[in-house]
Amino acid sequence: MNGHEERPDQDGARAAQAGADEAEPLGGSEAKLAELEDRWLRAVAELDNVRKRIARDTERLRAEERDKVASEWLPVLDNLERALSAAEGDGDADPVVQGVRAVRDQAVATLNRLGYRRQDQTGVPFDPRHHEAVSTVERDDVAPGTVVEVLQPGYGGDQRQLRPAVVVVATRAE
Amino acid sequence: MNGHEERPDQDGARAAQAGADEAEPLGGSEAKLAELEDRWLRAVAELDNVRKRIARDTERLRAEERDKVASEWLPVLDNLERALSAAEGDGDADPVVQGVRAVRDQAVATLNRLGYRRQDQTGVPFDPRHHEAVSTVERDDVAPGTVVEVLQPGYGGDQRQLRPAVVVVATRAE
Repeated sequence: MNGHEERPDQDGARAAQAGADEAEPLGGSEAKLAELEDRWLRAVAELDNVRKRIARDTERLRAEERDKVASEWLPVLDNLERALSAAEGDGDADPVVQGVRAVRDQAVATLNRLGYRRQDQTGVPFDPRHHEAVSTVERDDVAPGTVVEVLQPGYGGDQRQLRPAVVVVATRAE
Repeated sequence: MNGHEERPDQDGARAAQAGADEAEPLGGSEAKLAELEDRWLRAVAELDNVRKRIARDTERLRAEERDKVASEWLPVLDNLERALSAAEGDGDADPVVQGVRAVRDQAVATLNRLGYRRQDQTGVPFDPRHHEAVSTVERDDVAPGTVVEVLQPGYGGDQRQLRPAVVVVATRAE
């Protein structure tokens, strides 16, 4: 009976661990029965745990990959906005600029649909989850801690933030 | 001994299946031992299989999500190219057009880095894995079946194709 392979194959080494720790020679028949039933129940319970973990990991894996791929597009969108900023002097009537602006809006909508909301609001309280403050400015017309300028928009939701908005924050005027 | 729960908990129902099928009352002591050892080995083997499946599924899940998120950006890139086509009359010197063209190149490079090569070559043989032919044209200067025009570029590799290139294919001139 003990001649059975404890490890069904080479790759099974880790998988068999749940039971293999107790794979000492067994004593009397009753003890053997108790021991074997215990091993079986442990293996079944571990199988259950592994299957539950798969369900959790699946969503986490997808979200990680979504973050990674979506992040790759942020520099493209940033540069598109830079090209638009440079074109602002050309006037809104330029059909090329209008077309490119529509593409920018489409890119922002695409990120939003993937779960990454654009964060470029001013007048909101500074929130360290969504904002990165790079400078402050004295202001007496807004509450201290108010975002008064967005230097680079952020993208993300409450759960997953692709990157924070880079902002300027108001301080109390002296 | 048979008073033991075969299913460690409610959610364990599916997980316990590997062993539960054989959970009939056991006969003599030797038979019990053989049966229990068999159950244990089956559960351990199943655990091993499940763990191997996780490794395979992980890469498949990531690739699926990568396809899905990257696909969302193709309409954005298509529209950027349309805006550029509309601007072609304005001449290459326009700094806005130059900037947008650089963004287009950056977007194509991003897709390439993610594993989706741009397919917009003419002069290559029609390949149903990468091309979708929407029309043909009689030509006597190229071999029949040659791609002579790309109406919309495709993106993808040999393994994973985001979308085929939409092409016009040469036929033998009558």
